[in-house]
Amino acid sequence: MSANVTKAKIGVLGASGYTGAELLRLLIPHPRVEITLLTADRRAGKTMADVFPQFAPYALPVLTSIEGADWKPQNLDLAFCALPHGTTQTVIAALLAAAPRTKVVDLSADFRLADPAAYARWYGHAHGAPQLQKEAVYGLTEVYRAQIAKARLVANPGCYTTCAELALIPLLKAKAIDADEIVIDAKSGMTGAGRAAKEEMLFSEVSEGFHAYGVGHHRHMAELDQEFSLAAGRDVVASFTPHLVPMNRGIFSTIYIRGVKAKPEDLHALLLKAYASEPFVHVLPFGKTPQTRHVRGSNMTFIGVAADRVEGRAIIGSALDNLTKGASGQAVQNMNVMLGYPETTGLEQVALFP
Amino acid sequence: MSANVTKAKIGVLGASGYTGAELLRLLIPHPRVEITLLTADRRAGKTMADVFPQFAPYALPVLTSIEGADWKPQNLDLAFCALPHGTTQTVIAALLAAAPRTKVVDLSADFRLADPAAYARWYGHAHGAPQLQKEAVYGLTEVYRAQIAKARLVANPGCYTTCAELALIPLLKAKAIDADEIVIDAKSGMTGAGRAAKEEMLFSEVSEGFHAYGVGHHRHMAELDQEFSLAAGRDVVASFTPHLVPMNRGIFSTIYIRGVKAKPEDLHALLLKAYASEPFVHVLPFGKTPQTRHVRGSNMTFIGVAADRVEGRAIIGSALDNLTKGASGQAVQNMNVMLGYPETTGLEQVALFP
Amino acid sequence: MSANVTKAKIGVLGASGYTGAELLRLLIPHPRVEITLLTADRRAGKTMADVFPQFAPYALPVLTSIEGADWKPQNLDLAFCALPHGTTQTVIAALLAAAPRTKVVDLSADFRLADPAAYARWYGHAHGAPQLQKEAVYGLTEVYRAQIAKARLVANPGCYTTCAELALIPLLKAKAIDADEIVIDAKSGMTGAGRAAKEEMLFSEVSEGFHAYGVGHHRHMAELDQEFSLAAGRDVVASFTPHLVPMNRGIFSTIYIRGVKAKPEDLHALLLKAYASEPFVHVLPFGKTPQTRHVRGSNMTFIGVAADRVEGRAIIGSALDNLTKGASGQAVQNMNVMLGYPETTGLEQVALFP
Amino acid sequence: MSANVTKAKIGVLGASGYTGAELLRLLIPHPRVEITLLTADRRAGKTMADVFPQFAPYALPVLTSIEGADWKPQNLDLAFCALPHGTTQTVIAALLAAAPRTKVVDLSADFRLADPAAYARWYGHAHGAPQLQKEAVYGLTEVYRAQIAKARLVANPGCYTTCAELALIPLLKAKAIDADEIVIDAKSGMTGAGRAAKEEMLFSEVSEGFHAYGVGHHRHMAELDQEFSLAAGRDVVASFTPHLVPMNRGIFSTIYIRGVKAKPEDLHALLLKAYASEPFVHVLPFGKTPQTRHVRGSNMTFIGVAADRVEGRAIIGSALDNLTKGASGQAVQNMNVMLGYPETTGLEQVALFP
Repeated sequence: MSANVTKAKIGVLGASGYTGAELLRLLIPHPRVEITLLTADRRAGKTMADVFPQFAPYALPVLTSIEGADWKPQNLDLAFCALPHGTTQTVIAALLAAAPRTKVVDLSADFRLADPAAYARWYGHAHGAPQLQKEAVYGLTEVYRAQIAKARLVANPGCYTTCAELALIPLLKAKAIDADEIVIDAKSGMTGAGRAAKEEMLFSEVSEGFHAYGVGHHRHMAELDQEFSLAAGRDVVASFTPHLVPMNRGIFSTIYIRGVKAKPEDLHALLLKAYASEPFVHVLPFGKTPQTRHVRGSNMTFIGVAADRVEGRAIIGSALDNLTKGASGQAVQNMNVMLGYPETTGLEQVALFP
Repeated sequence: MSANVTKAKIGVLGASGYTGAELLRLLIPHPRVEITLLTADRRAGKTMADVFPQFAPYALPVLTSIEGADWKPQNLDLAFCALPHGTTQTVIAALLAAAPRTKVVDLSADFRLADPAAYARWYGHAHGAPQLQKEAVYGLTEVYRAQIAKARLVANPGCYTTCAELALIPLLKAKAIDADEIVIDAKSGMTGAGRAAKEEMLFSEVSEGFHAYGVGHHRHMAELDQEFSLAAGRDVVASFTPHLVPMNRGIFSTIYIRGVKAKPEDLHALLLKAYASEPFVHVLPFGKTPQTRHVRGSNMTFIGVAADRVEGRAIIGSALDNLTKGASGQAVQNMNVMLGYPETTGLEQVALFP
Repeated sequence: MSANVTKAKIGVLGASGYTGAELLRLLIPHPRVEITLLTADRRAGKTMADVFPQFAPYALPVLTSIEGADWKPQNLDLAFCALPHGTTQTVIAALLAAAPRTKVVDLSADFRLADPAAYARWYGHAHGAPQLQKEAVYGLTEVYRAQIAKARLVANPGCYTTCAELALIPLLKAKAIDADEIVIDAKSGMTGAGRAAKEEMLFSEVSEGFHAYGVGHHRHMAELDQEFSLAAGRDVVASFTPHLVPMNRGIFSTIYIRGVKAKPEDLHALLLKAYASEPFVHVLPFGKTPQTRHVRGSNMTFIGVAADRVEGRAIIGSALDNLTKGASGQAVQNMNVMLGYPETTGLEQVALFP
Repeated sequence: MSANVTKAKIGVLGASGYTGAELLRLLIPHPRVEITLLTADRRAGKTMADVFPQFAPYALPVLTSIEGADWKPQNLDLAFCALPHGTTQTVIAALLAAAPRTKVVDLSADFRLADPAAYARWYGHAHGAPQLQKEAVYGLTEVYRAQIAKARLVANPGCYTTCAELALIPLLKAKAIDADEIVIDAKSGMTGAGRAAKEEMLFSEVSEGFHAYGVGHHRHMAELDQEFSLAAGRDVVASFTPHLVPMNRGIFSTIYIRGVKAKPEDLHALLLKAYASEPFVHVLPFGKTPQTRHVRGSNMTFIGVAADRVEGRAIIGSALDNLTKGASGQAVQNMNVMLGYPETTGLEQVALFP
């Protein structure tokens, strides 16, 4: 961390939400960045300590509004966009028009679907920046690393989707499983629902209980369809049910699959090989299942494969922290790739357990 | 609650565990019972207030040891047996030999499997009381009510199994679903793991996290196999994965099924009809999913059915409180049936939410 | 529960909040009441199952608006008022003007302060129904039982205040402690903060953490001042700091006192005697401290007294469920007293632990 | 993190407990250390991944037994001792006899009390290594930094005590508060109770509830007495009551004090000045109170001061993470001081919230 290392100028758009806070947690001690811009429209004029008191000890820019922002003089090397789905595409289009050399990692869903028709079908309106939609690279780092390295705009994947895709893409690519028989039963901590004040997210509504939501029709499905189909080379439609767990962080996906010729042990071997040299994906010994608590606050994904007693079926457990590898951690990982830094820089945190 | 109502003499064997405490919670205000015996071997000589301080305000028998118990003079009308799996069969055999008119509701797994071979296969040893095993009635009240009314020994079902069986038995009986395509993804609160002091059950080990366990080989499967096969009239082997949720009470089962000719709406109609007059099973409107918190502390099971976007597939959510309908509540329900009381007596508690 | 018992007609004004739901939990199985009116302005037209799904299995009136309510034909025997502080006084004045024979238990703070000047000082405006303010009886049942039995309007105490007052009033009355040296460190579960959707009450904001609030200036202090001063026969101003615990239910007050001549053991004896025949206050053996979990969902208060190692000082622990004895349970207790029912009717629930 | 930086050889004795795991979390990415020894008697032969799966991705020494350890050839620069209270003194005496140049940071209570008589009184037996007891430096870094820099054996303070001492020592040194009128009401997360499998620490026993323990006679008091008396220059005996909060990490102390001439604002100014240049103590603006969640996983202590409405009284809130600044974080901070590294090295983690 010598003084004469060059530091990239970084902006975080939408710093008052949970993914914004998580970005700052990772970026503040990151040796190769300098945070020069923080926006949060409703909190403009406030400090980060006002909206997240844990940042009180750190010197950070005051929050500003994105409205009327003059992007050119900001001279950002890279902007993280942690804005609500839908509004993002307009903001990024304006930013890139004014400051074309700035790179962008977008944490919203706006640029994740490559197909304009799929976007319109799932979101109910045409995309507002179709040229950028075409340019955007899907930011599942382990799969698209080479493209990300050259990208100007990276669409950071969703948390549920990262968790399921890391487990299944190598198996689909190898045509080792029946693509028509995938059931993904996913469970998420509450931070995945964001920081908006809604009755159903109050502590007393969600603690000491468990439930499913969006049964049969969750938007994350579009992203899964796209990536699974690309991997399999054919249309794939999986069953996917999200649930809420009374905990802050973590996603656990229980994935039921049928091997095609491949036995559960073969599927395990395939994953072990696929991730042998990946710093952020760890495949457990065969028969072991991961726990979300063991990746909390880290950028790790833990994957386990076990045999079902039903012949030919396997059960995969995949666990990550929805705010880290499922959002801001992977965003910083992508930033490292885009800026040519070692991929693990600033992401060395060991999981916080207990 | 007039004074001249006759009250049954009740014993609780194994009163220092969670299902024992839950039995007392329900039995203390029950107008037709009198608790005359409480046992807890390791705590013999102590009061219930010593092992569960919430009982301090109530007059209750001191805890005694089961060793050398003289069952005849106890003159119990009914004994609840909340002892560990395995030891139970010996205790109940001795009790019924000495006091043949005493009725028994056993909350352990010892008498749930009717087939001696299945018992031996799953538990690794021959059953110690094969005659009683033959006599025992499986205590899923809604399904076996008539037999329970005449039974001397009722094997109270497991919590996971009650939750899944109530959702699936009517559909299997109607041959409305593909019995080879059942996936049960079950999530339980921590009380299901009992009160034994184990490192992996410590607060700091299990809060703020989520994980699966017993993947591919959980003992509850034997009970599911038995009841599903009986209902379907053929062998049924379902995929079943249990998980632990950082909450005290509640089981939620997400069940993935394929209709045979039946559409999801038809499956819903079948369940609605099956439980139309049941006081403790409530089927939600089509498309809605239940939450464990809305049955907490009550004897209710809430069931919801929704369509999957994958054609022909439906997703069922089934929720109950593992200590109440999943154990002690159903045990009291069975006691009511066995003693000829109105089935809901003492079980009128509305769920405790929030 | 014979059919020819007369049942009082009961209304719950403000049924969509937590104290409203708790009232219904207790009133639905109550053998002497019939719920004939439920109001919830913003949810008018909806069912209770819409706002609290646990009530789906029960037949209940549809929610109506309080606006333009015609109180006379409702012919209520008693109305519970669980409306926000401030709006309550107008509603109750209108109700009692139109239907003077209806009795009211008000769960808001509006009628708790007897002194108009104190009310104006703490709430910043003159009371809107000063005649009723004079008429209202403070509903700490154990202390004001006789007056409550004759009252038309009872001001149900606050949760924090019930917890501290039950512990201290007998000691202050006996002049056994130094009234200038009282420190009350109070901790509450999250339901005490109500159901309004506020960012700071979101699960992810409050789980896995602990904090104080309203330090030095909490409104509950006015109520404490009033009752402590009445008990002591002189002005008493105690230190009081509320905190939030990541749990749903429960208040625990750690109270630091100095005996005046009285030793800690004497203070314990005083409390033991004061509550010897009370069904809902249980004083633990000397040196033991209570836990909120052991009163959860019950109407009990558990109180413990221990000696501090600092000579002459004692430490009291007082625990209750803020929604039950701290709000709706005590409200039903007061209803029982006002309607001449046995005081424990419908309040026999044993605490839900675990 | 250039390759030619020298790295200290570090051992962690007792690596299978929570403070051991927390040490590894901080030491693994620490740029100036190399972990060369890990012991855990009951788990000897296992890997860290066996006892804490979050370490699976890291290369670490296998766990060994401390029995018969040959300390000399280990050639440790520094050993962290995270062993149970009582056994520690023997182990450290043996270690330092065999390897006198090794430095030790002891996280147990064994060397915290300087006075042999006080030790014997609180622990019921004479100290087993009185010479080392004399040599040991109390490791409250902000207060004893100079001595720590020269020490061979540092007694890392307790978590409760660090939290209260950082708040009060500057005020006692300045004689700004009445030393006879201190009430410390402390609340801790569950990890403070350690990893031993005890019934009362099970999830279902401690979630959804709150209680005090060790009322009137907690061992941490000895340490408080020692440091408060040293700071005040006279005997100080404070009231101290610990409580358990259903959360993993965090201690919050609510401290009630009376100023001597000093007003609450003056007390705040004193603390602000005392910690103006400290990296790990942050004093909030006057009137604000901290929250444990905002220091979770970081080495920070947040302190707030507010006025009580009782004239002359102030209320201090002090919050830290019991495993980090309250144990392993401060231990690493002390290691940095002892080895001449910048004090914040490896401790730059920003708090993990939410």
